[in-house]
Amino acid sequence: MSGCLELGVCYYPEQWDPSRWQEDAARMAALGLRLVRIGEFAWSRIEPEPGRFEWDWLDRAIATLAAAGLRVVLGTPTACPPKWLVEAHPDVLAVGADGRTRGFGSRRHYCFSSETYRRESRRIVTAVAGRYGHAPAVVAWQTDNEFGCHDTVLSYSQAALHGFRRWLQQRYGDIGALNAAWGTVFWSQEYPSFAAVELPVGAVTEANPAQRLDFWRYSSQQVATFNREQVEILRRLAPGRSILHNFMGFSTDFDHHALSPDLDIAGWDSYPLGFLEWLDIEPAEKAHFARQGHPDVVALHHDLYRGVGRGRMWVVEQQPGPVNWAPYNPAPLPGMVRAWTLEAYAHGAEVVSYFRWRQAPFAQEQMHAGLNLPDGREDVASDEVRAVVRDLERMPVSTRERAPVALVFDYEADWLLRIQPQGADFRYMSLVLEFYSALRRLGLDVDIVPAGAALDAYRLVVVPTLPVLAEEFVAHVGRLAAPVVFGPRTGSKTRDFQIPAQLPPGPLQHLLPIVVSRVESLRPGLLENAFIADESIAVGHWLEHVESAIEPALATAGGRGLWYRGGRVNYLACWPPAALLRHVFRALCTEAGIRTIDLPPGLRITRRGNLHFAVNYDRSPVAVPADAEASFLIGERNVLPGGVAVWRNRPAG
Amino acid sequence: MSGCLELGVCYYPEQWDPSRWQEDAARMAALGLRLVRIGEFAWSRIEPEPGRFEWDWLDRAIATLAAAGLRVVLGTPTACPPKWLVEAHPDVLAVGADGRTRGFGSRRHYCFSSETYRRESRRIVTAVAGRYGHAPAVVAWQTDNEFGCHDTVLSYSQAALHGFRRWLQQRYGDIGALNAAWGTVFWSQEYPSFAAVELPVGAVTEANPAQRLDFWRYSSQQVATFNREQVEILRRLAPGRSILHNFMGFSTDFDHHALSPDLDIAGWDSYPLGFLEWLDIEPAEKAHFARQGHPDVVALHHDLYRGVGRGRMWVVEQQPGPVNWAPYNPAPLPGMVRAWTLEAYAHGAEVVSYFRWRQAPFAQEQMHAGLNLPDGREDVASDEVRAVVRDLERMPVSTRERAPVALVFDYEADWLLRIQPQGADFRYMSLVLEFYSALRRLGLDVDIVPAGAALDAYRLVVVPTLPVLAEEFVAHVGRLAAPVVFGPRTGSKTRDFQIPAQLPPGPLQHLLPIVVSRVESLRPGLLENAFIADESIAVGHWLEHVESAIEPALATAGGRGLWYRGGRVNYLACWPPAALLRHVFRALCTEAGIRTIDLPPGLRITRRGNLHFAVNYDRSPVAVPADAEASFLIGERNVLPGGVAVWRNRPAG
Amino acid sequence: MSGCLELGVCYYPEQWDPSRWQEDAARMAALGLRLVRIGEFAWSRIEPEPGRFEWDWLDRAIATLAAAGLRVVLGTPTACPPKWLVEAHPDVLAVGADGRTRGFGSRRHYCFSSETYRRESRRIVTAVAGRYGHAPAVVAWQTDNEFGCHDTVLSYSQAALHGFRRWLQQRYGDIGALNAAWGTVFWSQEYPSFAAVELPVGAVTEANPAQRLDFWRYSSQQVATFNREQVEILRRLAPGRSILHNFMGFSTDFDHHALSPDLDIAGWDSYPLGFLEWLDIEPAEKAHFARQGHPDVVALHHDLYRGVGRGRMWVVEQQPGPVNWAPYNPAPLPGMVRAWTLEAYAHGAEVVSYFRWRQAPFAQEQMHAGLNLPDGREDVASDEVRAVVRDLERMPVSTRERAPVALVFDYEADWLLRIQPQGADFRYMSLVLEFYSALRRLGLDVDIVPAGAALDAYRLVVVPTLPVLAEEFVAHVGRLAAPVVFGPRTGSKTRDFQIPAQLPPGPLQHLLPIVVSRVESLRPGLLENAFIADESIAVGHWLEHVESAIEPALATAGGRGLWYRGGRVNYLACWPPAALLRHVFRALCTEAGIRTIDLPPGLRITRRGNLHFAVNYDRSPVAVPADAEASFLIGERNVLPGGVAVWRNRPAG
Repeated sequence: MSGCLELGVCYYPEQWDPSRWQEDAARMAALGLRLVRIGEFAWSRIEPEPGRFEWDWLDRAIATLAAAGLRVVLGTPTACPPKWLVEAHPDVLAVGADGRTRGFGSRRHYCFSSETYRRESRRIVTAVAGRYGHAPAVVAWQTDNEFGCHDTVLSYSQAALHGFRRWLQQRYGDIGALNAAWGTVFWSQEYPSFAAVELPVGAVTEANPAQRLDFWRYSSQQVATFNREQVEILRRLAPGRSILHNFMGFSTDFDHHALSPDLDIAGWDSYPLGFLEWLDIEPAEKAHFARQGHPDVVALHHDLYRGVGRGRMWVVEQQPGPVNWAPYNPAPLPGMVRAWTLEAYAHGAEVVSYFRWRQAPFAQEQMHAGLNLPDGREDVASDEVRAVVRDLERMPVSTRERAPVALVFDYEADWLLRIQPQGADFRYMSLVLEFYSALRRLGLDVDIVPAGAALDAYRLVVVPTLPVLAEEFVAHVGRLAAPVVFGPRTGSKTRDFQIPAQLPPGPLQHLLPIVVSRVESLRPGLLENAFIADESIAVGHWLEHVESAIEPALATAGGRGLWYRGGRVNYLACWPPAALLRHVFRALCTEAGIRTIDLPPGLRITRRGNLHFAVNYDRSPVAVPADAEASFLIGERNVLPGGVAVWRNRPAG
Repeated sequence: MSGCLELGVCYYPEQWDPSRWQEDAARMAALGLRLVRIGEFAWSRIEPEPGRFEWDWLDRAIATLAAAGLRVVLGTPTACPPKWLVEAHPDVLAVGADGRTRGFGSRRHYCFSSETYRRESRRIVTAVAGRYGHAPAVVAWQTDNEFGCHDTVLSYSQAALHGFRRWLQQRYGDIGALNAAWGTVFWSQEYPSFAAVELPVGAVTEANPAQRLDFWRYSSQQVATFNREQVEILRRLAPGRSILHNFMGFSTDFDHHALSPDLDIAGWDSYPLGFLEWLDIEPAEKAHFARQGHPDVVALHHDLYRGVGRGRMWVVEQQPGPVNWAPYNPAPLPGMVRAWTLEAYAHGAEVVSYFRWRQAPFAQEQMHAGLNLPDGREDVASDEVRAVVRDLERMPVSTRERAPVALVFDYEADWLLRIQPQGADFRYMSLVLEFYSALRRLGLDVDIVPAGAALDAYRLVVVPTLPVLAEEFVAHVGRLAAPVVFGPRTGSKTRDFQIPAQLPPGPLQHLLPIVVSRVESLRPGLLENAFIADESIAVGHWLEHVESAIEPALATAGGRGLWYRGGRVNYLACWPPAALLRHVFRALCTEAGIRTIDLPPGLRITRRGNLHFAVNYDRSPVAVPADAEASFLIGERNVLPGGVAVWRNRPAG
Repeated sequence: MSGCLELGVCYYPEQWDPSRWQEDAARMAALGLRLVRIGEFAWSRIEPEPGRFEWDWLDRAIATLAAAGLRVVLGTPTACPPKWLVEAHPDVLAVGADGRTRGFGSRRHYCFSSETYRRESRRIVTAVAGRYGHAPAVVAWQTDNEFGCHDTVLSYSQAALHGFRRWLQQRYGDIGALNAAWGTVFWSQEYPSFAAVELPVGAVTEANPAQRLDFWRYSSQQVATFNREQVEILRRLAPGRSILHNFMGFSTDFDHHALSPDLDIAGWDSYPLGFLEWLDIEPAEKAHFARQGHPDVVALHHDLYRGVGRGRMWVVEQQPGPVNWAPYNPAPLPGMVRAWTLEAYAHGAEVVSYFRWRQAPFAQEQMHAGLNLPDGREDVASDEVRAVVRDLERMPVSTRERAPVALVFDYEADWLLRIQPQGADFRYMSLVLEFYSALRRLGLDVDIVPAGAALDAYRLVVVPTLPVLAEEFVAHVGRLAAPVVFGPRTGSKTRDFQIPAQLPPGPLQHLLPIVVSRVESLRPGLLENAFIADESIAVGHWLEHVESAIEPALATAGGRGLWYRGGRVNYLACWPPAALLRHVFRALCTEAGIRTIDLPPGLRITRRGNLHFAVNYDRSPVAVPADAEASFLIGERNVLPGGVAVWRNRPAG
């Protein structure tokens, strides 16, 4: 993640008359774009009939782009199996939780468990990679497109049923072990054999949680295997090329970390304004940030995917204007596309690629803006791209370095808490976002890492929650020198979705002698008060009852412990309100000698090498907390709404 | 639409003991009713077994009514195919979007695409019309009942699938044309043949919008054809009789204008209090109007259906008291049934027919009030009918004349905006209602016309929106002398649901040199301010970015144009708030010499000939803006809640 | 219902290692528990394969409990047919309203109409009762578990269809009678034969209400028959044992009174905090009572089930801490488990049995607290049980006597009002709760009885509503000496779901000469005002128009009668607001010489013999209205939140 940012764009030559390609390519290059992603939805054009391939157009498209000096990222076209394939092999279709086979007519209609589709996927990837694997212009490959989009990880097909049974057999060996793990003695759910196990769908009331978690694991693994099968072909036929996938925002239906070893780069698709609509925040706050996006959501994903990509992260699709798919689709604040791009760079992006070159005038996404209008003229964002190019010219080489803080992110945690939230508003992603925001409001840079990561080099480790706590993880944490903060429900389950024998926080008790003997989910309006100095804070959502010989570092007015400390290990026995999180993080940072800054609500600062990047997400100007002698490379101390400032705190040596 | 109003009633002789018919008929006549609609749900009584017809009861019922001097409107009974028919021909049943065949047990369970049902429909209509086509008492025929009620236009049956494919083949000729029109290159949706096209249902995410629009067009056309098949039989077997259908409120699932050429009269069913519940207005406003209905909703439908009926409009079903089907069913304010009736007359109704003579004590609609209680005694509305009869006696012959203002209404616009609203609260009917209300608050009479209507004689033309703008329409508008106002999203699509090559407003650019280069849907709370004189207005919902050499006639404080004028042609580049609409309409009327009045919120005035009709929809008395020397035929200058005044501004010559 | 309270617990020996049983039993006994319910979910352990029974473990479990002096309540295990049974007999599965067969994997997946399942039910009950019917330790039997839980009364299976047809044939004899009763002439719904009748599901719009009511009656009867079949076997094989079922809160899908004759005891499962979440009350009120439960909901159920059990009532499952299944699951206020227990006793409970002994660490209910934590140590509630034991030691023998007030409760009323609510917020249980609360706020004890009960001994009879009013009931009421209060919609339907010929309140007109000629459902915010003395009250939800020669005892400002009195008979022609109910009840009690007290919002008093029990449901202390010379057995005059006081008003003789 050193070096300078490259800009790219998503392009669909098949959607335009070839006579326009050359001019398009020339204009891309002139705008400062270097990479063009193509091909990921073009199966019906590449193979219009079974076995009949039409390479000419794609040859020409690649050649045209290459001739303009552009490099190509080629997508495998498996997100959209064509009609003839679906007709020949109806068993490739996924099945919804409602029992209905999902139909052709949009995208992602395939079932990851379908052996037929696996074969077809390998076949088309082999064909495409065989054709372009050595093409000099094709420097990178994208597998499929947005795995899991439109709720497509879990499929209830016959293929999934049989695959799940085989997977269970492998996992448990004998059915007694499965029955024990799932606790099927409860409600006489016992299975006489693996062949008798059903998918966790269509039951009268909630299905067995361990069964659901295992089905989620199984399904997640199908995604990883599907991806790996493509990667293996690409490694063989397209040697030396980078391989990536474009992940999504708020996408947790499969374990993205499980794809890390197979990919070179974690790409992701960044739509800040659409994401805002999905948040659990007050309507007034949504209106306030409607044209900017939430100040932490995009950054959180940058940091998450930088972790998934083991340091290498691209923004494969960057929102350039209003989109089509959110409940409301406003335009970004002027300057915001530039700000998002520079912020991505600050967070380690190697590439920011805009979606898309030109707005399509037809089909489902015709209201999705691009860098160009459907009539071919430039849309607003093109000028912001130009500004980015100018910015980058002024930017010295720098490296996104390890952050002082690690935040541990876990996909299984999300599944588990969706299976048994225990309180209607307990959502993993909301909890993670609130922890992350509190850190960022203190001016801290954060790495988001899986539970298996090495944490030794961090100065603060934050675990919003980790219900299933592996002994190795606890052992690793126990050896750290840095303070570690665990959120509620950590260690509350075994890997079999059971309450641990020693009660929560389970193995964390090796490090902190507390027992969570009771938990409460609190409806809106049911609040417990606590005081931090003279400031009253109200705790809602979730409250735990802790037994411990340790005095809590903070308790409610009623005496219920909220924050427990034992040496470096901290446990928060509630859904911590923002003020509590800031208090805890500030205190621990002070002790650990990590400098914090109290940033205003809409300002965020990110460090890359010795550069400080500030983005103003607010609707009014704000002064950045640069040193008095700071030298500004971009912008100035006072940053307008949607504006960016980049500075060094000491003149470069 | 000249002459005096006739009153009628809906009657179900089959639901009552024949011994009551004679008294019922006598009391109808005594009350002043002249027309009785019967038969539209009586198939199981007319043909209790396949091919066995029982005419006796219906003969006698008609004779009884005729003997009392009443004329009959006879309904074809196809809205309710009987159980034996459904058992013999299960393929007549419709299929829902959930893939389930809709069952027997209520009504409208048939599929318009079913050839079998088409044949059965022709068979029963031939039988009934053969029997009563020349009956002197039967002066009019109603086809079926409330086409489209309960979401029954779109059916996903095999019959619909095959019909749709044939329809597409006819429309596009070859599959390449379809693929081009739908833009199926997007997401590899390409169809190898017409036989491969699926219905737009059950896809993983949204189906192709052009496919959806075509399926809506196809389905709409099935309704028109179904109706036409009945009309053709009736024309042949019931010569000289009027033919009508009873349409509904807020019913836009099929193109009602497409039925115009086949019908003599557009009937519609007016339920003002139920309609109120469906509106997108604040709860407090709903509570305020709960016993009166919204002051513009019913009038809007009168004007709409007067247009559908090419001047001839009946209220076939008039709410006479609380109904059974709305979420809340209060009683109308005393006097309101009379007010609704007189208002219908003012808007050109030839007939107002109350639903129903006597409240049924059984089955689904037993809580639907009638003119009489289930025990046979009069319900509240009967006295109001008497009052109407007295009112009408005092009323000179008059004619509902052409209004000064034409509002262009388009059913496809509604489908298109439902398929791609682009903002969660962008609803065509809400936009139309807001335009209509602004005109009516200014005291203006309005004709609601299809896009193909001749507009030459109007003094102001208003087009709330018309996404698909035909060149001929633009040419016609270009030749008009009157000012024309277009709302947002006009000209934003081609007939193939694509963005026009020249960008919106497409062909309107011939008349007004503007380009809409970007649109935004704004969540509640995200508002842009503008000033009209010193009054601040807030623009929400929808905002367009316009490129133009023209200075906008009104812009936001931030400089974004809201109102563009070029000669007579006006374009509103936002969802216009009420104050903006009033401002624009007032200004244009002033320039065009059309007199406007600023009416209070709950008062509406309608002109019929030289008569002025005022209805007070408010909860407090209000003075009508009659001339000082006005002569009042009904009521007086001060009108009580639910009250009516009718006056001439100059003593009759 | 005399004698002292016994405490019990629900226990699942099959879920724990047998090595723990003995200690568990010893600790249960030591805690003061006397009864242990077991076995109701253990079919897969009792009969792990078709016909192969494993009795050893259950023999030993019962012996272990018995050895500790505990008595056993044994559940028939039919709520959870095991996997092998479902595989062998897929026709036992229920079918949902969505047409999908409900799957294995949770519980209650069987269809009450399935003859196969009936046979299997009899077979397993015969086996279990054959084994343990004479076991001395097994003193009572529970049939199945929570009939109707998870919406399982109505099943749309083929078995239900055929059963329903047979049931209709028996009820109506000939199809003409059915057609007349259902009014199928409406919408041509006429059925040619019983074999042609469909289930009321999947129709285009609402199905026939009489058909729906009959299907509900049929389905309810299947539950009663299913239960009776088990009872008959138990009576034969387990002579002398008590038989009960554990009903639920807010459970009205089948007629519980129909099971009364077959049961000795009505058990029910009391979850005060979960119930609160289901109420139609303001969020602020929910937050206020979140840790206590609503002050009247649990008591209402005690009184209801005491009636269902003809005097004998048990709390089979008592919430001991946070549960897992409500949207929010807070912990009870300290002391609340004790308070609930003592309140149950005050209301006549013979047994309070906590659910469950030890929290299970696995499967669906792993987050449901018990008396013990999953690690075996005591949870909070154990100490409260100890406090109850001490309380009971101080308690003299007493009897829950007949209350002065009878409230008539009717399950069909609930079905009928769900089938045609006529207003979105008209819910029977809400109406009943509001009537009950008004009585209890006046310090009155209440018996809740079926419409067929003898009412002669009551001093006030309250009927929140009884839409179907039998002539015999009216005759019985006519002979009473006590005042009777009827709520809205009483007598509004015949048993065939028709409006009575004489209009509502139907046969009540024998006692009170009023005619309800019109009803209105009022949306929130649409209110009519009335005055009680100087206090203004607002009537919403529901308002009736009454014709009568009687002057109303209370009317709206607009003159609409709200309260009609004729001798002892009172009719409330609206959804009565709390102030109106209190006014009416206070007035009638004063006249009848029944003493009332105006209790504060969160305090409730219950009498048992000469003991007064007060529970403070509020969040602040409150003084109880004991006589000055009262002697307190438990607590004192000032009662803390969650606290209890028990006193005698006169020193015991």
